[in-house]
Amino acid sequence: MQFLSDYRNDFEAYLNEQIQLQEPEGLYAPIKYIMNLGGKRMRPVAALLAAEICGGTRQEAMAAALAVEVFHNFSLVHDDIMDDAPLRRGQETVHEKWDINTGILSGDAMLIRAYTLVECYPAEKFKDLVSLFSTTAMEVCEGQQYDVDFEERDDVTVAEYLHMIRCKTAVLLAGSLKMGAITAGASQKQQNLLYDFGVQVGMAFQLQDDYLDVYGNPETFGKQPGGDIIENKKTYLYLKCLEQLPQNQAWELAQLYTLKPKDPAPKIETVTQWMSQSGAAEATKAEMQAYTEKAFALLDELDGETEKIGLLRQMAEGLLVREF
Amino acid sequence: MQFLSDYRNDFEAYLNEQIQLQEPEGLYAPIKYIMNLGGKRMRPVAALLAAEICGGTRQEAMAAALAVEVFHNFSLVHDDIMDDAPLRRGQETVHEKWDINTGILSGDAMLIRAYTLVECYPAEKFKDLVSLFSTTAMEVCEGQQYDVDFEERDDVTVAEYLHMIRCKTAVLLAGSLKMGAITAGASQKQQNLLYDFGVQVGMAFQLQDDYLDVYGNPETFGKQPGGDIIENKKTYLYLKCLEQLPQNQAWELAQLYTLKPKDPAPKIETVTQWMSQSGAAEATKAEMQAYTEKAFALLDELDGETEKIGLLRQMAEGLLVREF
Repeated sequence: MQFLSDYRNDFEAYLNEQIQLQEPEGLYAPIKYIMNLGGKRMRPVAALLAAEICGGTRQEAMAAALAVEVFHNFSLVHDDIMDDAPLRRGQETVHEKWDINTGILSGDAMLIRAYTLVECYPAEKFKDLVSLFSTTAMEVCEGQQYDVDFEERDDVTVAEYLHMIRCKTAVLLAGSLKMGAITAGASQKQQNLLYDFGVQVGMAFQLQDDYLDVYGNPETFGKQPGGDIIENKKTYLYLKCLEQLPQNQAWELAQLYTLKPKDPAPKIETVTQWMSQSGAAEATKAEMQAYTEKAFALLDELDGETEKIGLLRQMAEGLLVREF
Repeated sequence: MQFLSDYRNDFEAYLNEQIQLQEPEGLYAPIKYIMNLGGKRMRPVAALLAAEICGGTRQEAMAAALAVEVFHNFSLVHDDIMDDAPLRRGQETVHEKWDINTGILSGDAMLIRAYTLVECYPAEKFKDLVSLFSTTAMEVCEGQQYDVDFEERDDVTVAEYLHMIRCKTAVLLAGSLKMGAITAGASQKQQNLLYDFGVQVGMAFQLQDDYLDVYGNPETFGKQPGGDIIENKKTYLYLKCLEQLPQNQAWELAQLYTLKPKDPAPKIETVTQWMSQSGAAEATKAEMQAYTEKAFALLDELDGETEKIGLLRQMAEGLLVREF
């Protein structure tokens, strides 16, 4: 009997073996630091599971799994600079502990490192892995740029928002699964099923995050609700609310989203009320549900060891079925 | 009869075809901007020449040549942020024209783009190219970190300096040549000869740059002499001077290199005098000459079309034999 925690532990052991300090320390110490801040290791575990589902081994998939995790952490280091974020997983961000230049350069080295990690695969697999990885990485950059652009725009559509979170969040989970499948020499059909499953789970996960940011129980969600409202983030909930409110109220909402009042409580209360009354909250839950259902339907189409597919299902359930 | 300018023109045409605006514009416009600021295109032309010397075609080598140039420009974008530089090739730097976040993210996208450019090669060549490219890119990052570290250190040795410029400058020219050779299916021996030639030329070029920064004729060198002295840059000239001066004078020099006086002229005059009197200037010229001679000796060992090897020699001469 295997548990998801076994995959995570194996991955951590591999990570510790691979990510070592070396010279120049100013470049590599921040890499070791961020890679050891923890996190759920959702993407690498997904890659390992995908490989086993497709008849490969966990060990063979390790390098691809680590490449994805290194990339993910690279994007955190650079995003934290761009967002001027002081903390990451409750610890100082890299640019805070060192400085911005160190964050930029160590991040660059991490992106390159992700590519060197997959050099252990034979040429054909290497090319498939690197091509998929690059496509995914570029989409993540594009998603980040759309996210930045949306801050300045007042005409963002729901469809544009969905495209943005697909790029920024969903494709990396999808890419991780497909990379795992590639290491196992899986058929194109299996690869695509796993990829699509990852996209659906990633979309559902991000929509859930938007929802919980407003309606989450602070004790189980881990943060005070209303952060996105304070920051005027144009989430699915907000855009759907704009769509569904009567025109004059929609206009008021848009006005509220140009302000950052000192005491945010009344704004949070008003916006939350409108999100509920307009039906935007329900619509968000429904959209999330639709992605979740599609995800699980794709799992049913997968071939492979039932036990391993069960673990992937368990992982998705762990990500998606938080308390509402 | 072929001229170096033909290679450059062909490369520019390919670049313009490949580097197009696309959505999101905020990500791709800065890429197009920096790629069109010009420059000598020394590295891509070297890649094209190497390919032809090894019996390949210019057209086949284009994608690898562009990958190298995109990488080079990526490093300029991120370095300019780190150096807080307002101008690049006489025009606004990316982070100045847009902002720092745009510079970081567009730079990241360029690094990824460099990898996607070589996807047109078959799997075996692709793997050779990507592995070499990653190794080179990582060395460039390490060189940049050493350069940053040296600013804070007062015990940098000449050997450490040479290692730093090898990483920061020389390996990219070397890697460009070898990548060109790989696209042509060259033998390992040819690949290595071209690589080593590139390292020697790159080292000589950087040492020459250090020398001309102090002793160059502003009319032919294009900038006022003394920039490195003003900035307290620990160049080969400076480190050699420290080595060769009597101890008390060396101590004085080190002290001078902790200051940035408002009027730099007296400092420049003193330091320049010491560099001449100590023999550091002659030692730098001799070191540069040694790298240059090794470079040309390697060229003599190369197999391949004499005319193309002649063009590579011409290119190196153009880079290295500036007026003293």
